[in-house]
Amino acid sequence: MVVEMKTNVTPGQVAEVLDHARQLGLSTVLSTGSERTLLGIVNTTADDRMTASFQSLGGVASVFLVRHPYQFVSSDSSVTSTRVRVNDRTIFGGNEIVICAGPCSVESEEQIRATAAAVAGAGASVLRGGAFKPRTSPYSFQGLGADGLNLLRSAADEHGLALVTEVLSVKDVDLVATYADILQVGARNMHNFSLLSELGVVKKPILLKRGISATIDEWLMAAEYIMAAGNHDIILCERGIRSFDAKTRNVLDLAAIPLLRNLTHLPVIVDPSHGTGVRSAVTPMSLAAIAAGADGLIVEVHPEPKNALSDGEQSLYFDQFVQLVSKCSSVAEAVGRKVSEAPHYVLQ
Amino acid sequence: MVVEMKTNVTPGQVAEVLDHARQLGLSTVLSTGSERTLLGIVNTTADDRMTASFQSLGGVASVFLVRHPYQFVSSDSSVTSTRVRVNDRTIFGGNEIVICAGPCSVESEEQIRATAAAVAGAGASVLRGGAFKPRTSPYSFQGLGADGLNLLRSAADEHGLALVTEVLSVKDVDLVATYADILQVGARNMHNFSLLSELGVVKKPILLKRGISATIDEWLMAAEYIMAAGNHDIILCERGIRSFDAKTRNVLDLAAIPLLRNLTHLPVIVDPSHGTGVRSAVTPMSLAAIAAGADGLIVEVHPEPKNALSDGEQSLYFDQFVQLVSKCSSVAEAVGRKVSEAPHYVLQ
Amino acid sequence: MVVEMKTNVTPGQVAEVLDHARQLGLSTVLSTGSERTLLGIVNTTADDRMTASFQSLGGVASVFLVRHPYQFVSSDSSVTSTRVRVNDRTIFGGNEIVICAGPCSVESEEQIRATAAAVAGAGASVLRGGAFKPRTSPYSFQGLGADGLNLLRSAADEHGLALVTEVLSVKDVDLVATYADILQVGARNMHNFSLLSELGVVKKPILLKRGISATIDEWLMAAEYIMAAGNHDIILCERGIRSFDAKTRNVLDLAAIPLLRNLTHLPVIVDPSHGTGVRSAVTPMSLAAIAAGADGLIVEVHPEPKNALSDGEQSLYFDQFVQLVSKCSSVAEAVGRKVSEAPHYVLQ
Amino acid sequence: MVVEMKTNVTPGQVAEVLDHARQLGLSTVLSTGSERTLLGIVNTTADDRMTASFQSLGGVASVFLVRHPYQFVSSDSSVTSTRVRVNDRTIFGGNEIVICAGPCSVESEEQIRATAAAVAGAGASVLRGGAFKPRTSPYSFQGLGADGLNLLRSAADEHGLALVTEVLSVKDVDLVATYADILQVGARNMHNFSLLSELGVVKKPILLKRGISATIDEWLMAAEYIMAAGNHDIILCERGIRSFDAKTRNVLDLAAIPLLRNLTHLPVIVDPSHGTGVRSAVTPMSLAAIAAGADGLIVEVHPEPKNALSDGEQSLYFDQFVQLVSKCSSVAEAVGRKVSEAPHYVLQ
Repeated sequence: MVVEMKTNVTPGQVAEVLDHARQLGLSTVLSTGSERTLLGIVNTTADDRMTASFQSLGGVASVFLVRHPYQFVSSDSSVTSTRVRVNDRTIFGGNEIVICAGPCSVESEEQIRATAAAVAGAGASVLRGGAFKPRTSPYSFQGLGADGLNLLRSAADEHGLALVTEVLSVKDVDLVATYADILQVGARNMHNFSLLSELGVVKKPILLKRGISATIDEWLMAAEYIMAAGNHDIILCERGIRSFDAKTRNVLDLAAIPLLRNLTHLPVIVDPSHGTGVRSAVTPMSLAAIAAGADGLIVEVHPEPKNALSDGEQSLYFDQFVQLVSKCSSVAEAVGRKVSEAPHYVLQ
Repeated sequence: MVVEMKTNVTPGQVAEVLDHARQLGLSTVLSTGSERTLLGIVNTTADDRMTASFQSLGGVASVFLVRHPYQFVSSDSSVTSTRVRVNDRTIFGGNEIVICAGPCSVESEEQIRATAAAVAGAGASVLRGGAFKPRTSPYSFQGLGADGLNLLRSAADEHGLALVTEVLSVKDVDLVATYADILQVGARNMHNFSLLSELGVVKKPILLKRGISATIDEWLMAAEYIMAAGNHDIILCERGIRSFDAKTRNVLDLAAIPLLRNLTHLPVIVDPSHGTGVRSAVTPMSLAAIAAGADGLIVEVHPEPKNALSDGEQSLYFDQFVQLVSKCSSVAEAVGRKVSEAPHYVLQ
Repeated sequence: MVVEMKTNVTPGQVAEVLDHARQLGLSTVLSTGSERTLLGIVNTTADDRMTASFQSLGGVASVFLVRHPYQFVSSDSSVTSTRVRVNDRTIFGGNEIVICAGPCSVESEEQIRATAAAVAGAGASVLRGGAFKPRTSPYSFQGLGADGLNLLRSAADEHGLALVTEVLSVKDVDLVATYADILQVGARNMHNFSLLSELGVVKKPILLKRGISATIDEWLMAAEYIMAAGNHDIILCERGIRSFDAKTRNVLDLAAIPLLRNLTHLPVIVDPSHGTGVRSAVTPMSLAAIAAGADGLIVEVHPEPKNALSDGEQSLYFDQFVQLVSKCSSVAEAVGRKVSEAPHYVLQ
Repeated sequence: MVVEMKTNVTPGQVAEVLDHARQLGLSTVLSTGSERTLLGIVNTTADDRMTASFQSLGGVASVFLVRHPYQFVSSDSSVTSTRVRVNDRTIFGGNEIVICAGPCSVESEEQIRATAAAVAGAGASVLRGGAFKPRTSPYSFQGLGADGLNLLRSAADEHGLALVTEVLSVKDVDLVATYADILQVGARNMHNFSLLSELGVVKKPILLKRGISATIDEWLMAAEYIMAAGNHDIILCERGIRSFDAKTRNVLDLAAIPLLRNLTHLPVIVDPSHGTGVRSAVTPMSLAAIAAGADGLIVEVHPEPKNALSDGEQSLYFDQFVQLVSKCSSVAEAVGRKVSEAPHYVLQ
């Protein structure tokens, strides 16, 4: 059961609701986001009488019965889909489809500035790029770290783009949050519960990638860790799951999109680059993701994919990305949506 | 290496080419389809001199170097995509997207007639339905057998639909071929090599479903079994692969579509019903399949899904199928294609 | 519910039981094996009154309540474990562990005679070897066919070995049954239901390999197809399942052994050769299988693994197999069992 | 290439070797463990001349050519297997098999004291138990934290047991290292590279569990992160991988044991409890693990499995654990090893 408090709720009213739950012997979790204050009643099968008893308390807006263990992220706990607002022009979860693009890793000022210009020109709204890279081998390129964050921020600002970048460790959360508009949790960290809890107290949206072999339920539970700690602005990102055929890096599970529509109120985007690992499959899978109902894409683009320090074989050339956005616009229109207008286009 | 003979090749010319190969110590496979006569040179790395020596023989149209072990189905062995012609109006692999629809199993005359009417009216070109059903349990409904084939044929004819139905056993091949326009090999039989070889001598198109956990290469090898035996009219069908999350029956691997485009000249369709096992995911995955480049769909539709003897939970209601076709038309147009016009529409 | 008839039951008594079931509106399956006559009551939740009503009929020995959909193979339907008798000396499912060994394929008289001598000398009781080979590629070696069967039989007889070999197709069942003591269903055919049903009427034991990605339940259902058709002598063989790590050909799921012990009365053996695909892992996994409770092993052994026409990289050298049997004997003793004495040893 | 320095190497000699590498344009990683000082030359194909040039420098003991990207953990970089010494009586990687046992989570003083007494009495050498628990749901029991560590330490000391417990977060490393003899990295954190690096500077052995769907190579790379940072005392733990059959929690991949024997010099133990999730499979899989060559086991044991706060369905009862150790001793003897004598036995 989730109790949503009114926007103008007072601390006293919240205390009264908590007290009411305690008297009923119920455990509670208070989750105060930027727009909603929610009270979760854990592990309880509520009946009508209990619901009514909460509904009648001061400051209570609504009481939701929830069928799932992930109560805050469950679609049962919100009458509307969540719109994650990054800035005035970029909102995930509305009718507009948001495209994030950029290199796997920021490698140099020249590389990231050129890419930011290209993806903004083509119609992306958000710049992606890694400064802290999770690499299977300790000897692979690990990213430029703090310097990389600075380069990313400058390149994004130059073109009016928002910035999404990955945070790998609890100790880097504050640093990354200083530079990024959206903090990404990578697939390898989806089960890093201490990192998730830490991100629950950050005041920026979180892009939560699906774990390498996470079930949909485990993924939503990971989101629940963040939301229970108070951060309601979560964007889910399907990025492929591990399977048996080495022809692709992962199997992109696009059916996750309609499934998540029924299970959660959070927006869902797709990463066709990691999801396939094959350049020629990136555009078809981007179109498929939009046709299936995705709220956005996150795509790897690089000035010279063949010389990329990581993920070159799945990165698009600039002209391929221009084509991708153009085709995405057509498919978006066919399903009654549109690609979010790039800031670049707006400014000129 | 694949040698394509001219359309008007004489038996003597074929013999001469075979003899030339034998003199070079090469093993050969002769595959005579309805439109092309192909000679495969197995397990050989050909060089330019060898290629030229074949090219210069009488009756030879072209010589193709092939990188893959599946030489006849490889995209290397044909300059054009294969168009599998079912009848005058229904061709898989052209610009038009073909929609097959119908119940999992034919259960009664009333059920199949009603469904055929509904799917034809909505825009399908091919009726699907099982008369011989592969069931995990020997105690589950196994289909109506020969009676079912008769009911399917009548229902298809009544509405000008082509008919696709599964053949389970070598001993049923002739019977099924008498009734069906397209013979389906189910996922459980993709590795039934004796059935595949038998279907290589049938003069009807084969719909070859991907095995439950078959790699792309294994799937193309299964198609090679059919084509090497002389049947060139093969339609590949992605139907989901087995994975770890019980939320869906299978994981629909749509990236197989762009991968197959590069690897083979054969058309590819998608089964979103088995591919997800979840009714609410069928339409989104159908749209995604078309956006990704699929040449067609095969969808389960039932008059009363709740009372279906098999697969009810993934079958669409009639009105949902009408919506599906309409949305598919929009997405098809967005990617420069169109849904094949249903015969019903043509006739009226 | 399974009704076991007395050994001396008359046809009239069976008819009476069937009639009783019909009057109660119950579907039945009659399965007459060489030792037991069983009547399965399908899809029914029986209560005590119903059980008693069957128990009181003439010719009825016992009535079993069965929790599983695979009723005949369920451990609920038999008070003892099934002992599959191949000949006087070779019985699967008793206290003795049976070792089957031989090449992947029979390639020549010399090869199979040398191997039969070696494995008999080392302590194997059963010769394995393929005459009909299921190969992913139509261009790979497909086996010697009928000639191979003849070579296998002679080599087995020369050393007093029983013979197990694979049957690929319904049309080969009679031929293979003429030569083999045990008919093997390969992993790729576990879901070939027409083949399974055909093997249900054969009067020889069946070795049923687990499908490439079959669940335990699907595997037991496949066994049920055979047993429902009247063949009660089924040996299950765990041979590895498909997974994501290319380091091994398959993942050998040894936990299947204790699980099957609880679920079925049928004996279970293990194929460590296909189960790993790595020669150096074959002996450790053989020992592990016996420690986990396996009733036998089936191991690939070849005179010259490097020159084998198939599966060379997973075949043992003769001296490695001698070591394997010796170590297996020690582990068998540690778990209170013993390796079945080879006929060769007995004769000399 | 790995350069091993002599035991009595001086800082100046190390500097000289590093300088030599720099002059050759080579990147280096210096890993100083408690027993060995190793210098890794990254991403280089060394030839004999280069090897000799390092071999001739002062303080160099040996130079190893390494075929794998995980150079320090590769079996190529050590002539002997690593023996991880926990205390005088408990060493992983020698001839003796070490058994770790205890509850999933420490729940109360009574529970952990009773369990420690029972497992020590039965023959375990190491107490296991979680104080910080990684739970899929934020609402599941998360462990007793620091209080739990204290209870675990006391219980272990009371019976002369060593203690292994999980560390979930970088910020808890120091705390856990104060109490534990061995720090465990759980499956969900195998890809938490910041945690791995942090554990590289801890002066206690690390138990590194395989990730939920990690390949063998990824697992060894994770170990390389720890070893490259200076901690050479790593115990690998196979705990099952994710697969498609819900009958078991995971598929226990025992073939990993012989594979790892060839790839690494590190000891390998097995967790049959998480590896199957099924109580009745724990003992058979323990025996199988030892037969396959495992250096130890880590087993869940609980006074009252039915009332356990976590993992009850896979925990053994005390008497079952007594049986397990007894049977393990027999199988260990059959493969020429023995179960490490429990301290309890020694003291009495």
